[in-house]
Amino acid sequence: MQTVNKTIQMAFYQFFNGEIVPVAQPLLQTNDLGLLRGFGLFDYFRTYNGIPFRWDDYWNRFANSARLMKLDLPVTQEETSKILADLFALSGEADIAFRFILTGGYAPDSVHVIKPNFIIRAEPLPQDYPAGRLKGIKVLPYEYVRDLPEVKTTNYVHMILMADEMRHQSAADLLFHKDGEVSELTRSNIFLFKGNKLITSDRNILNGITRKVVLELAEPYFETEIRPVLLDEIMNADEIFTTSTTKWVMPVVGIGDHTVGSGLAGKHTLFLQGLFEKLIAGWGS
Amino acid sequence: MQTVNKTIQMAFYQFFNGEIVPVAQPLLQTNDLGLLRGFGLFDYFRTYNGIPFRWDDYWNRFANSARLMKLDLPVTQEETSKILADLFALSGEADIAFRFILTGGYAPDSVHVIKPNFIIRAEPLPQDYPAGRLKGIKVLPYEYVRDLPEVKTTNYVHMILMADEMRHQSAADLLFHKDGEVSELTRSNIFLFKGNKLITSDRNILNGITRKVVLELAEPYFETEIRPVLLDEIMNADEIFTTSTTKWVMPVVGIGDHTVGSGLAGKHTLFLQGLFEKLIAGWGS
Repeated sequence: MQTVNKTIQMAFYQFFNGEIVPVAQPLLQTNDLGLLRGFGLFDYFRTYNGIPFRWDDYWNRFANSARLMKLDLPVTQEETSKILADLFALSGEADIAFRFILTGGYAPDSVHVIKPNFIIRAEPLPQDYPAGRLKGIKVLPYEYVRDLPEVKTTNYVHMILMADEMRHQSAADLLFHKDGEVSELTRSNIFLFKGNKLITSDRNILNGITRKVVLELAEPYFETEIRPVLLDEIMNADEIFTTSTTKWVMPVVGIGDHTVGSGLAGKHTLFLQGLFEKLIAGWGS
Repeated sequence: MQTVNKTIQMAFYQFFNGEIVPVAQPLLQTNDLGLLRGFGLFDYFRTYNGIPFRWDDYWNRFANSARLMKLDLPVTQEETSKILADLFALSGEADIAFRFILTGGYAPDSVHVIKPNFIIRAEPLPQDYPAGRLKGIKVLPYEYVRDLPEVKTTNYVHMILMADEMRHQSAADLLFHKDGEVSELTRSNIFLFKGNKLITSDRNILNGITRKVVLELAEPYFETEIRPVLLDEIMNADEIFTTSTTKWVMPVVGIGDHTVGSGLAGKHTLFLQGLFEKLIAGWGS
């Protein structure tokens, strides 16, 4: 039998408990509290030009989620930076996404946290449709407010339950509202323009990093209001868009049967989209 | 090198994708929707005298949860019965518990269900404190109503977040209430006695199998009302108890700082507890 010098192949790997293994490798025992009790949180970000985008912001949000869930982080930001670099190098890709998953860990009694499990997955970038960002998306209004909205928990049950209905209605996402107030989409923040005024919700939302970046970019150009937003205001907005790590600045042109403005991506929205695209094109330089 | 005839040791095993492997074996890939999105449900039951208790009831509840979550079951009840028998035989124990876990399965896009993952874990029985069932427990009132209460989802975030506070206040569980109405404890149903009248909630609850059994046992002895229950009624009840697979018929003697009745387990409660214990003592015979 020949001895082969086994080398790691270019591919997507994950970090878990100090080791780096292929993403498809069975990894978790089935008494993990993330699986048994939905006691988990995550975060998701990507590189542009090979450099993690707004890494400090994503790390701080992740650390804040962990603190609110009373879970200790097993690694520092500096240690994590090194892991990200290793996973990126192993991928052989020009750009990748990273997914952090932090759970309550293995629990013999299926209730009490002993030691969290922390996983970092390297993932291929989601498919990109630049034309879609010019055309915009339709969303469905959905009466719901996320539990613990400021934590990026793993609870997305309603999104997955509604996946078929969204497909059926050619909608790309849900717009959460409750008691006449809107909060966010399933995985992204919402903005509206009324004239030259840019308005976004500050309540019952996850603090999006793309939202923060867009507010910075908009500051020199638009008057901005960050406050609770009514569903009525959304239905009477001139322009609506949503922001996220994967959606960037995405026009929202329909809410159920309601057409937003002219039904086309708004001019202010496309202007901000342009600023964002310029920022990421030059990221790291 | 000697050839050893490897035999499976007496121990706790789990079923997954047609195979039976030790419960401690790393099993799941990290792109399972139960882990990533909290899209999972479970069930939990046990044997008495080696025979699964009310197996048809537990199976039907599990199948109903799966239907409400739009997840296909990969095995029939008959096939599952055989798996339970195998896991039981491998354990070498007189009695064990079974935990079903059904998730949205592996999702390359982290959103859409392709094929559910179904795991059956054999587990040791939880520790039993017969004296505790005579003494009763204290619970903390907690304003919350479970999302999708009729589904036994894996979302128990609040229970785990409150674990330290419960320990601190010497409480064993949370009593969920909202808008003046009580629903259930984190993992068990609630009953109250007012005089000889037995009352239990029918709204925003998981349909407990032990609840069902206790209602059957109580029928010849007590007038029963199954209807929404107010928090005020709970605070003025003569006796309170809670029912579950692990708690059986457990007196509730304190709600936060409020003492229920005399602070001792009520006589009707202990009578029903006796009936339940007689039923399980003779189970299978």
